Amino acid sequence: MTSATVRVPIGRIEGRITRWVEDLLAVEAPLEIRLGSRSLSVTMRTPGHDFELAAGFLFAEDIISSAGHIRDITHSRPNVVVVELSPNAIIKAPSPQRGFMMTSACGLCGKVSLESLAANRCPVLPPSELKIDAGAIHRLPHQLRERQDIFESTGGLHAAALFNPRGELECLREDIGRHNAVDKLVGHALLKLRTPLRDSVMLVSGRASFELVQKASMAGVPLLAAVGAPSSLAVSEAERCGLTLIGFLRNGSFNVYSGTGCISGLEERQ
Amino acid sequence: MTSATVRVPIGRIEGRITRWVEDLLAVEAPLEIRLGSRSLSVTMRTPGHDFELAAGFLFAEDIISSAGHIRDITHSRPNVVVVELSPNAIIKAPSPQRGFMMTSACGLCGKVSLESLAANRCPVLPPSELKIDAGAIHRLPHQLRERQDIFESTGGLHAAALFNPRGELECLREDIGRHNAVDKLVGHALLKLRTPLRDSVMLVSGRASFELVQKASMAGVPLLAAVGAPSSLAVSEAERCGLTLIGFLRNGSFNVYSGTGCISGLEERQ
Repeated sequence: MTSATVRVPIGRIEGRITRWVEDLLAVEAPLEIRLGSRSLSVTMRTPGHDFELAAGFLFAEDIISSAGHIRDITHSRPNVVVVELSPNAIIKAPSPQRGFMMTSACGLCGKVSLESLAANRCPVLPPSELKIDAGAIHRLPHQLRERQDIFESTGGLHAAALFNPRGELECLREDIGRHNAVDKLVGHALLKLRTPLRDSVMLVSGRASFELVQKASMAGVPLLAAVGAPSSLAVSEAERCGLTLIGFLRNGSFNVYSGTGCISGLEERQ
Repeated sequence: MTSATVRVPIGRIEGRITRWVEDLLAVEAPLEIRLGSRSLSVTMRTPGHDFELAAGFLFAEDIISSAGHIRDITHSRPNVVVVELSPNAIIKAPSPQRGFMMTSACGLCGKVSLESLAANRCPVLPPSELKIDAGAIHRLPHQLRERQDIFESTGGLHAAALFNPRGELECLREDIGRHNAVDKLVGHALLKLRTPLRDSVMLVSGRASFELVQKASMAGVPLLAAVGAPSSLAVSEAERCGLTLIGFLRNGSFNVYSGTGCISGLEERQ
């Protein structure tokens, strides 16, 4: 079984002081669920209990209604689970045209197999000229919170915002889905003819997943910062795309998981 | 435009004392995105900036790459956005077989229009005989945190757990996606021949969305509790299914958004 966590080298910044340390990330990896020889779904998940995930997924989708409908569950590869259904199962199987997918992002949409997922990657960003001072980065979350109107009243929304290189908030969007908040933000920039967003910093209120890194790099954003933790796949995708990825941006410190070129005013502690 | 928040009557429980008050919820509602006359996607979103959401979604999906590819965006109904593409757009349109979807749940999977979404509803739960004491409910989050191994080390995971009517933890699963954590939990019960889970309480570490209420009620769980906020659609779906829905379960208090029949030991303050 693939591990649920992975250790990565990061830059830990407190104030302006950088220390190079190790951090533990939750693993995000695609799991393909097959019904016999047919690819049914790819979901981004943390490895572990994959058979339960496949069984629960098929149950929630109303494809099976009891354990008796499953003849066998196996791993054909570490990230592929194959479910063989019993001949007696009354299967409300989806039609061949029906697509399953857990999230929407440029590399995931409508993909039903790992092969199709790998074939559609985001472009690598051009070298960035963006520079933002570490002090300005520390001030971003405060501005986000000040403008999160709906979160304040309901406690229930994600926010995403764009800032200029001086750290001034330019646009903020809220939504119950974090991918929607980012789509709204990018859609706003697109409709205002401001893409690619080469001079912008994007901040998200929660964690940074693979799909958020993809959406940011698709829009040309050179620096994505998250108040919460990034996933393992978010970090590797950020490295591949040349995107600077910051996590745990709160209380005067942050972690740099990929790139530091966009950040000015840092000092290294020997 | 539909509002982003909605006011609902709730039971606010502190210790054992119930007060009937009003609470403000973030609205979760489906948005259908159409390309001309063709339904492309349904996403659960908070109303507002729907045109930006549609534009950003099409951009992230690589269907358009500039605002010039859009001739017009209109609302044909409050929850339907119609995008007309320019004749000069070099459209990498998805094939007709390709399905788009934002989350996976019994009412959402592979659905590309609001009509198909409405046609596939979860069954109403049978009357529940589960009784759990308010004091036991207050103790659930502490048990969840104590057992959240991966979250403790990474800060990056959702957890979902099942408890018996005495409030004792029976199974816990963690995942980067909250729907996966719940699928693993339900899959575990299914494979152990324990579904329907009529004597179980489910607790999730984050917010309660429509899809989590659907997954819980599909599995027969009579009481779903969340440490965070529920969405408007989670509450209305819980009411329709006859599921008791608790939110903001933390620090000795919680809110009851739907049903109170499962909870014993409550006192009303005049």
